[in-house]
Amino acid sequence: MRSVNQKALVILSGGQDSTTCVFWAIDRFGKDSVETLTFDYGQRHRIELAAAGAVATYAGVPNHVLPINTFGRIGGSALTDDSVGVPSTESTELPATFVPGRNLIFLTFAAAYAWPREIHDLVTGVAQTDYSGYPDCRRATIDALEETLALGLERRITIHTPLMHLSKKETVLLAKELGAVDAMGLTHTCYNGSRPPCGACAACILRARGFAEAGIPDPLAAA
Amino acid sequence: MRSVNQKALVILSGGQDSTTCVFWAIDRFGKDSVETLTFDYGQRHRIELAAAGAVATYAGVPNHVLPINTFGRIGGSALTDDSVGVPSTESTELPATFVPGRNLIFLTFAAAYAWPREIHDLVTGVAQTDYSGYPDCRRATIDALEETLALGLERRITIHTPLMHLSKKETVLLAKELGAVDAMGLTHTCYNGSRPPCGACAACILRARGFAEAGIPDPLAAA
Repeated sequence: MRSVNQKALVILSGGQDSTTCVFWAIDRFGKDSVETLTFDYGQRHRIELAAAGAVATYAGVPNHVLPINTFGRIGGSALTDDSVGVPSTESTELPATFVPGRNLIFLTFAAAYAWPREIHDLVTGVAQTDYSGYPDCRRATIDALEETLALGLERRITIHTPLMHLSKKETVLLAKELGAVDAMGLTHTCYNGSRPPCGACAACILRARGFAEAGIPDPLAAA
Repeated sequence: MRSVNQKALVILSGGQDSTTCVFWAIDRFGKDSVETLTFDYGQRHRIELAAAGAVATYAGVPNHVLPINTFGRIGGSALTDDSVGVPSTESTELPATFVPGRNLIFLTFAAAYAWPREIHDLVTGVAQTDYSGYPDCRRATIDALEETLALGLERRITIHTPLMHLSKKETVLLAKELGAVDAMGLTHTCYNGSRPPCGACAACILRARGFAEAGIPDPLAAA
């Protein structure tokens, strides 16, 4: 189901999920029609930006980096505020890694970036199945944002979320189907910014479980 | 209809409309419950930031400034891109001063800023009556955004738009009713960044017409 002359912009964090989305978009839109957008938003782990660049180079698609210097001044999240620790356990409350509105901001800036470039399709790796506690990653939120963007930009922007209803295991199997497993060795997942990964944080544990359940070795763990 | 212990955050650009909103919010929520938020987003005219600070000081409310260094890298608008000229005539197309998604970004960041501070009410001076061609300033867009924020932040944030259906004349009359006319001498409106204002750009013409129709002298023009 490849669409000709239809460009897509993938939001690429450098992690496992967004990397899988790059290969999904190449499969769907064709390599020449895919570009990637990475946000330099003051994440504590600069290794994420390098990972995004390496993934894009490996996949053979452009990687644009947009700075956002705003989140650090809003405060309150473990991902952008050094004074907030990252918890290793999960809870039913909103997690300490919640940056209010972060995904809404990323998608709105991506739509703004797409606007003058005649790109009508965004792709993001958010998922609500292995529910991470981020309400702005749910499909209902994405649907509402699509409507907001259509009104606010006077253009229908489709936000593709190919991983939305997949488990981590299914995401790993999709990556294999798309020939993206080797690229996983370039990605970064660990909340503690370690390479090799710490193996103890919630992100590492979720990732390891997904690869184990899919029966596929994680090239990052093997490195 | 003053609400006790309910804080409001006014998005203050330093212009005539957002300044009127500061006084509207003080009247509605009480001075001690009002804060203002100004975005330093790379606007060509730094005088706007000074105007916002002066207005807040005059009104006796705090002014917070949040930086956004992203728009300049998106490009395409006369307000943030020096290579794009500001047209002095109006047209039915989207204006050259359109920054895609700017108002959506402002409101989403304002909601994110409000989130950890337990502020549930935002106030913005957008208006669709003297229609400026910005689709993200219409009430339908704001309604959709409220829904998106409620889902994405798991909290109902009300976005007040007291000027939405007022003409410029009616906005000037409202400012008079709220005791805000003197504060207009501190505001900045001119697209060309001039002080005293150029009087020739679309923003200056619209402002002058509003004061003239209201039969009230503009303290800025008289300065």
